[in-house]
Amino acid sequence: MSSQPSRYTDPGATDWRLHDIVAALRQSRETTHNVRHKGRIREMPSRDALAGIVKGLQAALFPTHYGRPDLSDESIDYFVGDTLNSTLIVLAEQVRRGLLFVSDADASGDADLSAQAIQITRHFAASLPAIRALLVSDLQAAYQGDPAATSVSEILLCYPGMTAIIHYRLAHKLYELGAPVLARLISDLAHEATGIDIHPGAAIGPAFFIDHGTGVVIGETTVIGEGVRLYQAVTLGAKRFPTDESGQLLKGHARHPIVEDDVVIYAGATVLGRITIGKGSTIGGNVWLTHSVPPGSNVSQALNRND
Amino acid sequence: MSSQPSRYTDPGATDWRLHDIVAALRQSRETTHNVRHKGRIREMPSRDALAGIVKGLQAALFPTHYGRPDLSDESIDYFVGDTLNSTLIVLAEQVRRGLLFVSDADASGDADLSAQAIQITRHFAASLPAIRALLVSDLQAAYQGDPAATSVSEILLCYPGMTAIIHYRLAHKLYELGAPVLARLISDLAHEATGIDIHPGAAIGPAFFIDHGTGVVIGETTVIGEGVRLYQAVTLGAKRFPTDESGQLLKGHARHPIVEDDVVIYAGATVLGRITIGKGSTIGGNVWLTHSVPPGSNVSQALNRND
Amino acid sequence: MSSQPSRYTDPGATDWRLHDIVAALRQSRETTHNVRHKGRIREMPSRDALAGIVKGLQAALFPTHYGRPDLSDESIDYFVGDTLNSTLIVLAEQVRRGLLFVSDADASGDADLSAQAIQITRHFAASLPAIRALLVSDLQAAYQGDPAATSVSEILLCYPGMTAIIHYRLAHKLYELGAPVLARLISDLAHEATGIDIHPGAAIGPAFFIDHGTGVVIGETTVIGEGVRLYQAVTLGAKRFPTDESGQLLKGHARHPIVEDDVVIYAGATVLGRITIGKGSTIGGNVWLTHSVPPGSNVSQALNRND
Amino acid sequence: MSSQPSRYTDPGATDWRLHDIVAALRQSRETTHNVRHKGRIREMPSRDALAGIVKGLQAALFPTHYGRPDLSDESIDYFVGDTLNSTLIVLAEQVRRGLLFVSDADASGDADLSAQAIQITRHFAASLPAIRALLVSDLQAAYQGDPAATSVSEILLCYPGMTAIIHYRLAHKLYELGAPVLARLISDLAHEATGIDIHPGAAIGPAFFIDHGTGVVIGETTVIGEGVRLYQAVTLGAKRFPTDESGQLLKGHARHPIVEDDVVIYAGATVLGRITIGKGSTIGGNVWLTHSVPPGSNVSQALNRND
Amino acid sequence: MSSQPSRYTDPGATDWRLHDIVAALRQSRETTHNVRHKGRIREMPSRDALAGIVKGLQAALFPTHYGRPDLSDESIDYFVGDTLNSTLIVLAEQVRRGLLFVSDADASGDADLSAQAIQITRHFAASLPAIRALLVSDLQAAYQGDPAATSVSEILLCYPGMTAIIHYRLAHKLYELGAPVLARLISDLAHEATGIDIHPGAAIGPAFFIDHGTGVVIGETTVIGEGVRLYQAVTLGAKRFPTDESGQLLKGHARHPIVEDDVVIYAGATVLGRITIGKGSTIGGNVWLTHSVPPGSNVSQALNRND
Amino acid sequence: MSSQPSRYTDPGATDWRLHDIVAALRQSRETTHNVRHKGRIREMPSRDALAGIVKGLQAALFPTHYGRPDLSDESIDYFVGDTLNSTLIVLAEQVRRGLLFVSDADASGDADLSAQAIQITRHFAASLPAIRALLVSDLQAAYQGDPAATSVSEILLCYPGMTAIIHYRLAHKLYELGAPVLARLISDLAHEATGIDIHPGAAIGPAFFIDHGTGVVIGETTVIGEGVRLYQAVTLGAKRFPTDESGQLLKGHARHPIVEDDVVIYAGATVLGRITIGKGSTIGGNVWLTHSVPPGSNVSQALNRND
Repeated sequence: MSSQPSRYTDPGATDWRLHDIVAALRQSRETTHNVRHKGRIREMPSRDALAGIVKGLQAALFPTHYGRPDLSDESIDYFVGDTLNSTLIVLAEQVRRGLLFVSDADASGDADLSAQAIQITRHFAASLPAIRALLVSDLQAAYQGDPAATSVSEILLCYPGMTAIIHYRLAHKLYELGAPVLARLISDLAHEATGIDIHPGAAIGPAFFIDHGTGVVIGETTVIGEGVRLYQAVTLGAKRFPTDESGQLLKGHARHPIVEDDVVIYAGATVLGRITIGKGSTIGGNVWLTHSVPPGSNVSQALNRND
Repeated sequence: MSSQPSRYTDPGATDWRLHDIVAALRQSRETTHNVRHKGRIREMPSRDALAGIVKGLQAALFPTHYGRPDLSDESIDYFVGDTLNSTLIVLAEQVRRGLLFVSDADASGDADLSAQAIQITRHFAASLPAIRALLVSDLQAAYQGDPAATSVSEILLCYPGMTAIIHYRLAHKLYELGAPVLARLISDLAHEATGIDIHPGAAIGPAFFIDHGTGVVIGETTVIGEGVRLYQAVTLGAKRFPTDESGQLLKGHARHPIVEDDVVIYAGATVLGRITIGKGSTIGGNVWLTHSVPPGSNVSQALNRND
Repeated sequence: MSSQPSRYTDPGATDWRLHDIVAALRQSRETTHNVRHKGRIREMPSRDALAGIVKGLQAALFPTHYGRPDLSDESIDYFVGDTLNSTLIVLAEQVRRGLLFVSDADASGDADLSAQAIQITRHFAASLPAIRALLVSDLQAAYQGDPAATSVSEILLCYPGMTAIIHYRLAHKLYELGAPVLARLISDLAHEATGIDIHPGAAIGPAFFIDHGTGVVIGETTVIGEGVRLYQAVTLGAKRFPTDESGQLLKGHARHPIVEDDVVIYAGATVLGRITIGKGSTIGGNVWLTHSVPPGSNVSQALNRND
Repeated sequence: MSSQPSRYTDPGATDWRLHDIVAALRQSRETTHNVRHKGRIREMPSRDALAGIVKGLQAALFPTHYGRPDLSDESIDYFVGDTLNSTLIVLAEQVRRGLLFVSDADASGDADLSAQAIQITRHFAASLPAIRALLVSDLQAAYQGDPAATSVSEILLCYPGMTAIIHYRLAHKLYELGAPVLARLISDLAHEATGIDIHPGAAIGPAFFIDHGTGVVIGETTVIGEGVRLYQAVTLGAKRFPTDESGQLLKGHARHPIVEDDVVIYAGATVLGRITIGKGSTIGGNVWLTHSVPPGSNVSQALNRND
Repeated sequence: MSSQPSRYTDPGATDWRLHDIVAALRQSRETTHNVRHKGRIREMPSRDALAGIVKGLQAALFPTHYGRPDLSDESIDYFVGDTLNSTLIVLAEQVRRGLLFVSDADASGDADLSAQAIQITRHFAASLPAIRALLVSDLQAAYQGDPAATSVSEILLCYPGMTAIIHYRLAHKLYELGAPVLARLISDLAHEATGIDIHPGAAIGPAFFIDHGTGVVIGETTVIGEGVRLYQAVTLGAKRFPTDESGQLLKGHARHPIVEDDVVIYAGATVLGRITIGKGSTIGGNVWLTHSVPPGSNVSQALNRND
Repeated sequence: MSSQPSRYTDPGATDWRLHDIVAALRQSRETTHNVRHKGRIREMPSRDALAGIVKGLQAALFPTHYGRPDLSDESIDYFVGDTLNSTLIVLAEQVRRGLLFVSDADASGDADLSAQAIQITRHFAASLPAIRALLVSDLQAAYQGDPAATSVSEILLCYPGMTAIIHYRLAHKLYELGAPVLARLISDLAHEATGIDIHPGAAIGPAFFIDHGTGVVIGETTVIGEGVRLYQAVTLGAKRFPTDESGQLLKGHARHPIVEDDVVIYAGATVLGRITIGKGSTIGGNVWLTHSVPPGSNVSQALNRND
């Protein structure tokens, strides 16, 4: 390279010792956990495919907001039907891949898995009108809960809380139907877009509203009633993680809060453990709460001030 | 095909009962809030279009950082002029759509709306040099405020706080010019990218710096002076939401803090209500503050320690 | 056209006074900091290119998760080798651009910079197997640390903490090799996707796990041991920023915490300054901590309750 | 550039004297024909938009061949309806632009033009089933006329003659409805893809088949009966172009051949002028024919051979 | 639309009577040939997929010309292997679809078809080095045959004849292996790009060169020896199409010319029927030839001139 | 794969014996002509880049037809300038690559080649106004020569002859400036789009018109005067290719026709050798002409007819 300057055109200029690195990476793969499962390739669900699926479902549920703005009375059902069909076909394939992670997939042939995936997809499709009804209740709660909101359309277009709840309600249904990995992926898509992290296993009633939302965490076994409102950075988390005798974490047991109807939790509050926040309570910002409070409680943080 | 099922090739394999679902979704749409406004389609502003508009404006304002890195003295103005023109044409159409939400659009014909949209866009365009000057003051504040910053270019390329402020200053101008829905959309684009949620209605002085920024919330009626610095997860929010006699939220009245010049607010502080933080004050991390403090105050959190 | 107004078809309908705005923006550029460095164009590194580079590296490190799901034993090394090669070529060019910011680039010719960039890229490439080994330790820590995790694949696909750590480990190596601006850009890409902000200068040991993660901030001079676990909104920050006699910030001196092995820090804790958190300590949620604590400490927040 | 080698990074390295060239091009535009029509911008129809429109129409007409291959009984109509709707909306806008070229557009307002464009589009849409019926007759003619054809699907997927006829039948309808510029654009899209140049003004009966097709030219006033078959490089052209007294070409008068039912014309034949080729005639390859021939004629070329 | 002009925003403005058209198109589909084959969907091979496959194969065969120009000694095999693998996976799926058209697909299950498709793909892959050797002979023939050719690279990059021959040699192998529909699609892709129409069934020896090429047609049963050269618009076609007793075309029988070694055929010549052009003959431009000629013949057209 | 049907999921299902094929292809590359030139990689010019360059130049020359249709008086120069600049930067890099094929590139360093490429690009840019003037003369010739043409815009949008001439005039200038490979690539792009093959070395006067055009071939040393008109499938070719004593083709000597002013050549005529067609002559369709004809000649084909 010395006397004849050039950019990447000398032979060997871009020799990276690829053979050595490729070999070392292969060795690294082989000595660690391998996705190869009993000798067969387990195709991963695709994050990009899931993102497209959520986009398609949103368009089918709210066609003029998330689909195309110029739909007319005569064209809207064609749009909804066609969007649903193409979305569900992609979803069925992702569900099939997801099943490789949960079912005893080795015992059943691929054909069984496909049939099972289509069955799940069909049930999911059938639940979409009910999901839409829940989302409408959430929309109305947002409109009533935020003085800055000027229309329902604005909430659909601009509110990250709404984005997170749409993702959650779709993911939760897939979780219920036996597709937890897909559910989790959808949930993380919402997390990436909004900073709101709702585990798809959580059970959340209608008319749910999250304002601003960045940093909200809602754990796997959380139960939330109707008309609950959360602000940014609220954690509904686990306090401790019980282990079995061998010290392994116990997975799946109830360890997150129960939040009853009409509770409001302000920014930054941290609520931990299987405690109950009674109906109609208000939890102040930045509060750290690890025990149950009765209905109608008002919890707030101490303040020191040295001015 | 008989006994060995296969992948999606049987007739009916991908029958989702589309007719039923499409009909149920139609019914759901018809019984809830409808975007059809007095019999006419209200085209929604497009989130993707807004994202492209912001990208175009950023490129026009800082061409070598956000446009293309190889612009020369003779080519840069062509790039700026062409980028501006194509961006403003798209913006004018989005402004027109946004006006359907705010003006008494039914009374005025489409032609009036278009003319009004172009007028707003023209005023917006004319304000870009002033916006750039503000952004340069913000850049300098960032460079002086962060010991990790090594150059102004690094701040433009890598600092989420800068991204949020650029979006805010553009959105705020549109808000002032009567395009609040577009402003809100731009604001949510910044929120999605940075985790910083600044309502476009807030009034923020020059030399503003947000470090890290995730979880920052700045409410609609907040007023911020010159040279203010915020860290991640700071909330400048409302304490309570007054309602009218019928229990409806009062919209738009002053309910967020006034932060005077040269105030620093550390990570996680929550400042609520129409209070004033006096010039030069420092608010410590995780503080919960709901009353005014005089200039030069120093507020910090209590700490318990049981080790 | 006279009486019936129309949409953008009148001559002048879309006149924005481009000449004035373009001239004002040029003036604004000329009176402020200019990327033109001693008369030469300093090409900026490209955020999009960096995003593609990280994607390529992830695919090379975990081919079936981030590359393509259908790789077989015979095809996987071809995929890894080809992906690496095309990624490293792009990386070398970005490193070259980055060097314009750090080295005394004006003294050396372009050819020298190119050679230096290729050298750095080669060292970076050689370190990939070691980076992969660290990431495997992180994966195992996540699997053991989260009761909701059902498989290693789920963590790779859905955990923002894992995304952030992958970005960090790649960025940190570039930082060490003398490409700090690229490192910072990668770091901000992770921040955008996850809400987790790890400065590439931080030194982090193996088996690191961040759960949920939104709002986590880890400063430039932080030192983290082995087996540390963080939750969302934890700040490992600087307490104050020392200045030199002239009032300029001192850049690069040690000002962030040292977190020893096996420490757990819960959601929202703020740990500031060059303090040491002793091995095995637990820091409670929302705590504000500015002094060192010995090994095995247990720090938690006070709580007021007025119900 | 002398001693320090570099690639495009010196200031001025990429100075192209843009100002001079831009000015010269402006002057060139101003001294020649200008699209500005009586002071208004005449938006050109878009070739790319037309290509998309043809693609959409083909998908609506033959959904499993040109749309998506996995449509089921329940989904196919949704696909057709949605594809049609989105295609027709784009078409209406292109028709509107096309009208600026043909109608006395200056007299009518934009609103009139839009209404007229929608009217044309509606008529066009209504004719699609009839167009499909013609195309089915063409398909059957191709299947029967080519011993190499193994299925109707193969003809739809692989035969350039079929591609050209589909474009022609769509273009011809637009031509009839008063959108000749769009028709011409569609015609040229077929020409580009197939080398077959059919003027949309030609009148062509059912069961038309062109084999191979490259170089076929069919002029504006050609009339073709039912069951006609052409091979590659056949010209049905004009012999001479009559002019008016001032020497200007007379536009639009009948100057191309009439080809009656069941005629076959082999490769390379050139048939010129308003002559009639009688029903059932066969014209041999490479023939040059400028006078009418009665029904059942057999015309072939002379051959010299010097071996 | 009445008094207030607007663009597509009135309800019904874009009513196309979709229901009627969709219903009429459905009826049209049902009364004509249907791709539904004995009740099952026959997925069509995809033209776009085939285009990608050819691109991938070209890149694997000539990596620096059709792949990426900056491959080094250490990276080239990774590129070739990875490109081949991803291309062959897509090809196998297209072969499977193609088999639905040729085999007695109804009798065999999908699994059999998939296995058969993979087998064909494997054989095809194994033949690529031999195909490359033939293409190198064609390249050398082009270089020697065209005085305007300045390098082998120029021929690979710019010669439509070369493009057509590459497509042909790939298509011919698929044709031999039992994938005639795919072969035909590839052949038509070449036709679209070059105007050269070579049926994949033709048998063509090494060192074949077509100059310019537009309008060349080579029929299904043509046999071409070694070192043959064709110019534009040459037809090697069938003279007549024999039918069986019922008047149906006999498919697949030998009806195109045999062209022996070292023959040159000039522009526009039409050679029809199962005749033989003897070794070393020269056929002049625009000749119409329907009988065999012995080796070393020289055939040219008569000329009239009336000046 | 035996009893459990599946699609590509068994290990080895997609084993293609990649190692063998990759090795065989490597061997094939090594035994044949290699692009590696004296040990250095010769980066190929990119066909896709050239396509983009032509698109950019067309947009700069005819902004409202090939650029964007909504340009206004104030925006058009910005568009032209910006489009030119970004196009010329890409062109300069392609010219540099092209120089590796023509110059004694090994003797000169990369920096020299870059400087030379920029010099060529600058000259090319400076010639664009003159090229535009020629194209305007061609446009006027088309409008006057075709009775079917209704406007100049229609010719720019729909006439393949115009497309071919634009490509030719750009390519010819690059050819003159010493970039023959690029010129050839541009020429082949036109060939692909239009079926018209004009060698960039040909010299063509103003007011040139090709109607329909498919199959037109114009050889490297052709000379065409002013106001010439060609129809489809006209060949202006070489009659024979002289060789040197060793049998090698002599490259570059004058071997194609001279066509004087105002000549018209009808469809399918083949004109071969260094002959002269005198001013104002008319050559009939399908004529085979190999000797010069004086000014004002009228040449046509003989016709046999057996009806």
